[in-house]
Amino acid sequence: MKFLSDNAAAVHPAVWEAMRAADLADSPYDNDHLSRELDATFSALFGRECAALWVATGTAANCLALTAMCPPHGGVVCHREAHIEADEGGAPGFYLHGAKLLLAEGDHAKLTPEAIAAVVDPIRDDVHQVQPHAVSITQASEYGCVYRPDELAAIAQMAKSRGLGLHIDGARFANAVAHLGCAPAEAATGADALSFGFVKNGGLGAEAIVFFDPAMAQVVRYRRKRAGHLQSKGRFLAAQILAMLEDDLWLENARAANAAAQAIAQAAGGRLLHPVEANEIFLAVSEAERGALRHEGFEFYDWGNDAARLVTAWDADDAHVSALARAIEAL
Amino acid sequence: MKFLSDNAAAVHPAVWEAMRAADLADSPYDNDHLSRELDATFSALFGRECAALWVATGTAANCLALTAMCPPHGGVVCHREAHIEADEGGAPGFYLHGAKLLLAEGDHAKLTPEAIAAVVDPIRDDVHQVQPHAVSITQASEYGCVYRPDELAAIAQMAKSRGLGLHIDGARFANAVAHLGCAPAEAATGADALSFGFVKNGGLGAEAIVFFDPAMAQVVRYRRKRAGHLQSKGRFLAAQILAMLEDDLWLENARAANAAAQAIAQAAGGRLLHPVEANEIFLAVSEAERGALRHEGFEFYDWGNDAARLVTAWDADDAHVSALARAIEAL
Amino acid sequence: MKFLSDNAAAVHPAVWEAMRAADLADSPYDNDHLSRELDATFSALFGRECAALWVATGTAANCLALTAMCPPHGGVVCHREAHIEADEGGAPGFYLHGAKLLLAEGDHAKLTPEAIAAVVDPIRDDVHQVQPHAVSITQASEYGCVYRPDELAAIAQMAKSRGLGLHIDGARFANAVAHLGCAPAEAATGADALSFGFVKNGGLGAEAIVFFDPAMAQVVRYRRKRAGHLQSKGRFLAAQILAMLEDDLWLENARAANAAAQAIAQAAGGRLLHPVEANEIFLAVSEAERGALRHEGFEFYDWGNDAARLVTAWDADDAHVSALARAIEAL
Amino acid sequence: MKFLSDNAAAVHPAVWEAMRAADLADSPYDNDHLSRELDATFSALFGRECAALWVATGTAANCLALTAMCPPHGGVVCHREAHIEADEGGAPGFYLHGAKLLLAEGDHAKLTPEAIAAVVDPIRDDVHQVQPHAVSITQASEYGCVYRPDELAAIAQMAKSRGLGLHIDGARFANAVAHLGCAPAEAATGADALSFGFVKNGGLGAEAIVFFDPAMAQVVRYRRKRAGHLQSKGRFLAAQILAMLEDDLWLENARAANAAAQAIAQAAGGRLLHPVEANEIFLAVSEAERGALRHEGFEFYDWGNDAARLVTAWDADDAHVSALARAIEAL
Repeated sequence: MKFLSDNAAAVHPAVWEAMRAADLADSPYDNDHLSRELDATFSALFGRECAALWVATGTAANCLALTAMCPPHGGVVCHREAHIEADEGGAPGFYLHGAKLLLAEGDHAKLTPEAIAAVVDPIRDDVHQVQPHAVSITQASEYGCVYRPDELAAIAQMAKSRGLGLHIDGARFANAVAHLGCAPAEAATGADALSFGFVKNGGLGAEAIVFFDPAMAQVVRYRRKRAGHLQSKGRFLAAQILAMLEDDLWLENARAANAAAQAIAQAAGGRLLHPVEANEIFLAVSEAERGALRHEGFEFYDWGNDAARLVTAWDADDAHVSALARAIEAL
Repeated sequence: MKFLSDNAAAVHPAVWEAMRAADLADSPYDNDHLSRELDATFSALFGRECAALWVATGTAANCLALTAMCPPHGGVVCHREAHIEADEGGAPGFYLHGAKLLLAEGDHAKLTPEAIAAVVDPIRDDVHQVQPHAVSITQASEYGCVYRPDELAAIAQMAKSRGLGLHIDGARFANAVAHLGCAPAEAATGADALSFGFVKNGGLGAEAIVFFDPAMAQVVRYRRKRAGHLQSKGRFLAAQILAMLEDDLWLENARAANAAAQAIAQAAGGRLLHPVEANEIFLAVSEAERGALRHEGFEFYDWGNDAARLVTAWDADDAHVSALARAIEAL
Repeated sequence: MKFLSDNAAAVHPAVWEAMRAADLADSPYDNDHLSRELDATFSALFGRECAALWVATGTAANCLALTAMCPPHGGVVCHREAHIEADEGGAPGFYLHGAKLLLAEGDHAKLTPEAIAAVVDPIRDDVHQVQPHAVSITQASEYGCVYRPDELAAIAQMAKSRGLGLHIDGARFANAVAHLGCAPAEAATGADALSFGFVKNGGLGAEAIVFFDPAMAQVVRYRRKRAGHLQSKGRFLAAQILAMLEDDLWLENARAANAAAQAIAQAAGGRLLHPVEANEIFLAVSEAERGALRHEGFEFYDWGNDAARLVTAWDADDAHVSALARAIEAL
Repeated sequence: MKFLSDNAAAVHPAVWEAMRAADLADSPYDNDHLSRELDATFSALFGRECAALWVATGTAANCLALTAMCPPHGGVVCHREAHIEADEGGAPGFYLHGAKLLLAEGDHAKLTPEAIAAVVDPIRDDVHQVQPHAVSITQASEYGCVYRPDELAAIAQMAKSRGLGLHIDGARFANAVAHLGCAPAEAATGADALSFGFVKNGGLGAEAIVFFDPAMAQVVRYRRKRAGHLQSKGRFLAAQILAMLEDDLWLENARAANAAAQAIAQAAGGRLLHPVEANEIFLAVSEAERGALRHEGFEFYDWGNDAARLVTAWDADDAHVSALARAIEAL
């Protein structure tokens, strides 16, 4: 009974089907007819002109998006627990040619205008200090918490007032939209670019970088190739994304994962370390308790010494979820 | 009737099957049981200890391999027509942090010890000039020509004598081995690292970087992650590679592509610009002749003003190939 | 009466004299006879084999030294207040190609083995996190505090035990040695490389990077050129350094600066925010008090809202120093 | 009798004097009153608004200037013999984060619109090939030849028509202006940025990067600091430059060097490999002849097997020059 990672989940059958359907010969790279549909499809989804590029990983999506906002000598404000800071093996340093991540604090791995100001305001505008050029936030956050549209609007306003670009790492954007029940555009309020994740939500190996300023995409196309991320059979990445967007499969999958997380959260009660708003549950559980859960067959990661992280996926097994909920209640 | 690119070819059914079979939940990244088989599988194939990493593209494979051989201040000798120089959007400059490609000449896009010496020898060993650290050759070459083991041995000896690493871009390594009819190890004689291509040969989006010095792989693991190329569902890349290696499917596919190319080559006679040893045919054909071929339904790329490039793939259609051969003869 | 910066101080007459004496034509770059003396001179000074390179700035010295210890995908542990982190405009990100500074805490901007362990130990040895490759400390620290040889030995032992290189930013190394009254080698105990500063101590535009492992210097020679730091009339940089080392001028100058700082420190009493061990005084003084000091003609930088930084130099004017001491006592 | 390099020449007395005069304490970095004069001084010299930054070396000047014109994924067209390609240890790759030099041909190391077109036109505008963003030419060229204003205008027009920036490496800009006898602005016709050299012309260690678009300078200020090229006692670099510009000392020095070169050139007659328009003479001389010259006490560099390079400087000794002229005639 695996609650280790949504990365470990299966690929959705509709995604497989779409990939197989793309198997007929077509133009290589992103000149195939599916890749050429992406701009229009995302423009329709967000109700405004977008340009969208596929890449294989969230790390590539985040870092490529940021290259459009931050020069090598600049800085990107992000949360101390942001994936780009903590879990991408230094990829922003590579893609941004040594630009600096400027670390902010905030509950639940979420930033606020005040948290950003606390980082940005003390920076003198002189050449001795790295100047901020962008802000990157994660929707849903690394602790499974979701920014409301008004929170995003406040951050965006703050960023614009300082001349900073705004990037959203949406590895779990679907879970955030599912939680908010709002339009996708609202869940990305104010963003210049969004890493729209599919792999954790039933995809195989395709994420989208959505640029709300299409001119940014034009530059990033060169950067994507240069990073070795322009796959020659790109039609299979486009196919995944289009399949996920078709009939809102992405939302359906995210709702399923979120619902499983809620079921566990309700059983967890006071043990919750963060509000459960997406598909991650951070639980205060002792080593002995973790041992007990594992003894019953539940797999998950420790989160430091006194906590555990449990992740649900689109294909969560109801029986496993119920069993886990009961096991947590019984601790 | 498409002879545009082997990148446009279909994915082999056995690859699809293996991917579907990998769909069950497993550890993310490269901790799954399939990824963990790669080292042993390639070690068996090459009859010596290897370490192998999957990546999605040949560009990433080439550039990551070279990071293990060339520091940012160094240079890599390659042919003026090498893919890393001509077609990777400057990716070596990105991955190698500004290291320089030192361009050599040679017929059929192949290097020789003499051609390498002509580049390397005039470089004074002082700090004003970029010093060579590695050689990269392409097997089969960008003009579809194959290095024989003795040619490789001579290049390798030359490289070693100058303290240079040797990398082989094997985007079409399978076609080279099929042509040579030798052991895979012989077709990579003297290499420190090999980009072993599968995508052009029936794969979907997985290439292997094979290190004949496993210590190199240890460093490149970090670089792969940092480049956003550590896919979270890596089991699907490992599955492709293992399926291709199973029962020598890679060789069977390459033989089919090579045979199709031979059929066309025999029809082409004196029009051939390079020996046809793999699955690419470079043909002297006027604009009018190209128009005539296209009128008959054949698709291919122009190669400058007076030539055409035709590429065959593992799934070449015999009828199309025969038709093309006849059409060329009839020109 | 200037206590703003030792960077603003004059050049020592002996340095001018040596530069003029180097004016005769000689080989360009670092092939002149003065530059070729550096290795032997520093080897004699440190009582062991060294290789030394001149560069124009401390930033270049620090960053070039670190290139010998940390690959692009690695990390360097340093204090949150370290010059390389706070005041070099992101130069380490540039020189190290995106390697990451891993920030540690510690009183008086000094690190301890425990502080380093607190950063290094939680880093899992996997590719998702940037791995530490080196430690950089500042002698004297950014708050004018000095590491004793035993403190250095403990840090060096810790670094070695984790396989980390040790770099010392010695922009004010002279002040540290003057304070310790020990051999230069003791004040650099355990270092692999030392940025030995002269500019703040009576030089014009020359610092030395001293490598205690000469092999490191061989690589950094290429990096120096590549960074545009190989000056064509390098003899003038070598001349400065040799003049400073001649007859221990560097120590004499540092003693003068330290003595001036001590005179002020004694007047400051309980206002001192850090022990005064070199030539910097950090003083708790209100805005009104700072205004009063400035009204009397003293120039210095604010240090946040409630403090001031005062810096003395080799050419401190006794009368100015006494006047400042009295003015502080009178506050 | 040294004709090795103008880098080996002495520093002009007026430069020494100006440096000594700058010795009084002033603000560090480029906040001193001399550095703050540069923009106005160069604006007056060029008769238009300029922004100018000092750096220690021509390599830094060239590479920093190019960062304002070419993104990491772009390319810079330059001559195959350009200093940035051949003699800067790969510095453009470092400063431009892996951007590519696109090599053009041309007599006397000079480019023409046609030569640039021959490089640029075959580049498809797709992501697989590095796209050109700038052109860099050298005035006077690496073979001591000078672009006339109309030649520059044609290159500039060509560059603008393709959206390319234009950089001039003016390590010997003074010699070019002296040769042309025109206004400085004419000798830099169409340039966006000029590396204005002083070190080879009587300076010690200061070159100017002159931006004809001041907005470029604003960005490069950050890059200069980040490269460790913002010297803390920058007043001594500004002092050198201002002294050289005062009363046209730079032109006077260049005229002296050029005149010495002319005297030698006239003696050389048919041995000249390139027109002598600046202070470099490239001479067809056999090994035996070179031996004979050296035997008479003349020092110079070989230029391949059958030629020699001789360089004159501002402080050329008339007797040495006459002696050399006679010796060449006597060969």
